[in-house]
Amino acid sequence: MRLTVCRKEHFNAAHRLHNPHLSDEENQKIFGKCNNFYYHGHNYELVVKVTGEIDPVTGYVIDLKLLSDIIKEEVIDKFDHKNLNLDTEEFKNLNPTAENIAVVIWNKIRKHLKPEHELKIILYETERNFVEYPA
Amino acid sequence: MRLTVCRKEHFNAAHRLHNPHLSDEENQKIFGKCNNFYYHGHNYELVVKVTGEIDPVTGYVIDLKLLSDIIKEEVIDKFDHKNLNLDTEEFKNLNPTAENIAVVIWNKIRKHLKPEHELKIILYETERNFVEYPA
Amino acid sequence: MRLTVCRKEHFNAAHRLHNPHLSDEENQKIFGKCNNFYYHGHNYELVVKVTGEIDPVTGYVIDLKLLSDIIKEEVIDKFDHKNLNLDTEEFKNLNPTAENIAVVIWNKIRKHLKPEHELKIILYETERNFVEYPA
Amino acid sequence: MRLTVCRKEHFNAAHRLHNPHLSDEENQKIFGKCNNFYYHGHNYELVVKVTGEIDPVTGYVIDLKLLSDIIKEEVIDKFDHKNLNLDTEEFKNLNPTAENIAVVIWNKIRKHLKPEHELKIILYETERNFVEYPA
Amino acid sequence: MRLTVCRKEHFNAAHRLHNPHLSDEENQKIFGKCNNFYYHGHNYELVVKVTGEIDPVTGYVIDLKLLSDIIKEEVIDKFDHKNLNLDTEEFKNLNPTAENIAVVIWNKIRKHLKPEHELKIILYETERNFVEYPA
Amino acid sequence: MRLTVCRKEHFNAAHRLHNPHLSDEENQKIFGKCNNFYYHGHNYELVVKVTGEIDPVTGYVIDLKLLSDIIKEEVIDKFDHKNLNLDTEEFKNLNPTAENIAVVIWNKIRKHLKPEHELKIILYETERNFVEYPA
Repeated sequence: MRLTVCRKEHFNAAHRLHNPHLSDEENQKIFGKCNNFYYHGHNYELVVKVTGEIDPVTGYVIDLKLLSDIIKEEVIDKFDHKNLNLDTEEFKNLNPTAENIAVVIWNKIRKHLKPEHELKIILYETERNFVEYPA
Repeated sequence: MRLTVCRKEHFNAAHRLHNPHLSDEENQKIFGKCNNFYYHGHNYELVVKVTGEIDPVTGYVIDLKLLSDIIKEEVIDKFDHKNLNLDTEEFKNLNPTAENIAVVIWNKIRKHLKPEHELKIILYETERNFVEYPA
Repeated sequence: MRLTVCRKEHFNAAHRLHNPHLSDEENQKIFGKCNNFYYHGHNYELVVKVTGEIDPVTGYVIDLKLLSDIIKEEVIDKFDHKNLNLDTEEFKNLNPTAENIAVVIWNKIRKHLKPEHELKIILYETERNFVEYPA
Repeated sequence: MRLTVCRKEHFNAAHRLHNPHLSDEENQKIFGKCNNFYYHGHNYELVVKVTGEIDPVTGYVIDLKLLSDIIKEEVIDKFDHKNLNLDTEEFKNLNPTAENIAVVIWNKIRKHLKPEHELKIILYETERNFVEYPA
Repeated sequence: MRLTVCRKEHFNAAHRLHNPHLSDEENQKIFGKCNNFYYHGHNYELVVKVTGEIDPVTGYVIDLKLLSDIIKEEVIDKFDHKNLNLDTEEFKNLNPTAENIAVVIWNKIRKHLKPEHELKIILYETERNFVEYPA
Repeated sequence: MRLTVCRKEHFNAAHRLHNPHLSDEENQKIFGKCNNFYYHGHNYELVVKVTGEIDPVTGYVIDLKLLSDIIKEEVIDKFDHKNLNLDTEEFKNLNPTAENIAVVIWNKIRKHLKPEHELKIILYETERNFVEYPA
């Protein structure tokens, strides 16, 4: 049976939910206060889960220090203390909902993992709102 | 790949575990202190998880404000600050174990969701005891 | 300088806020949904803080195992899985607000401590509502 | 002895630490990544503590529902899902450090309380960085 | 549909990550500070999840008091306040990584459950590092 | 009025409670399972609180990045992933109770602070056992 190892990290960022193809009224109706013109922000908590076999030499599925370094390079260094809409290439043309952020992070980390490893992302926008990708 | 969005809410309620088809001795043996005649209570923490595709217009699987409103109408307004055994129709004839409460909540929320959405309930009776439905 | 040691315990109980010297309308107005006739309930989290000098032989202010035993005997065994209004002597004639519960617990634990020790109680009724006694 | 009652609320906001009387280099040196030009953000957790005597009629120091309404009107409605630097009058000319935010919130809530009540604010900018006012 | 019930327990233990078939240099390179010669330690948080059908008589999948007793006998009594490498048979010849500890615990609890029940273990070594078995 | 700023850090360590001036029987009686010969361990959570005036230029009482660096140099680098009894000078001849660890940490950090700043340490040995120094 395979095993899943998990690493939790966090970053603090500003964002605004907005679809430029919709009118201001539609954006306000769909996104409410999350559409605030001058942005708002969150302490994002990120859990990265990697599933695979235990290496009999190390007793590890993957070295969590290595996984933490990958997360730091791909996510924390790029998103922490940033405005997701204005400071990042990833969300210049993509609405930074928790759903879209999770998919972006999955793609950024996936390329660093071995093919036999599975990857899952959990992203907490607040303690009460969070997403899991893939389901 | 599909994505899961999660919303956490809470309610405070009194309950008593008791099966009227069993003797008092059997109830005491099975349910122990949870069978206390005059009830006891909990701060229930409820996580509602909805799985589906991301809507390309909104970047949402489902608007969490809408999901929160459904939970409020179906669960919080009916169970919060209530005695589950005496104040609710749902548990007049159903033992309010965490398991049964989770199934009841699943049925109450399921009918508000689109057919293509999947639903999962996590219910924390305490920080140390919780259930997930479906498994 | 003196040092404070803290022990956290919990109990689950039902209660109802009600002042029998007031009318039903006044009770409803003051206590709202906490006045629900058939009770509701909480997972109470209790922090007991004892301040004193460090004993040079043990390196302890007070043995936390001993403090835990005192809390168990005086609080948990009496209030856990109980209806505070109906099952306890302490709240037969005292409204079981978090404030009053904290004062009752303080008095029950105080008598077990040495005179040179100071005692403080923190009682969480929910994660968002809690009291400290004395201030 | 007096008792303290506490209410926890939260708000999500963007901010930028910046002193306009300093050069860009000095701002960068003092505030580091918190000086990011396009802002970043936080889930602020706010604990409001009120100290006073227990009212013998209600068993309350202050109705936490009332306290919650005051916090909502004075803090949540004004700061939640806002950019503190650009959307609020309070921080147009005041650097929105956790310290300054706590003092601002103290002043906004203090005026609603009775003279005999004492007020203390705890503001969590992250789980690891928080301030208490007054000390 | 089947339902999952979960019980959370904890234990405090010392351990050292070390593979005796590797050189000291290799051990240091692979395990870093977790290879510290004189051990270090953790507060392990353990979640045991059991999946099955709800018993119509009790409303339980499994009595969580019984599950807690199994965990106490098989895990807490053997690992709590112990040095995993030196005080336990299980890790005399098995590197006590979180992965290996989770598999050991799974095997110890599995034998107490009914064949129709499924078992899953989540083990938190720290708040930020945890594993799930099986995946 | 003065303000308190707080920084939370953590370290993982092994320890054993033992007084060499007492017999083995006395040590066992006083410290119970915390006296385990081969040590056990904890995830220590450390909160460092500094009280002072707000600097009008920075809006800070003290730069929390600086405070974090002091904690890292004086506490984390010395105690993290160590055996407190065997790997550290501080506890070679001092019983590493939470009380004594808190006093040691206070003395190590105090010397880095300005005279007008007050210092308080909170040390969580577990979620349920913690100490504050000074009281």
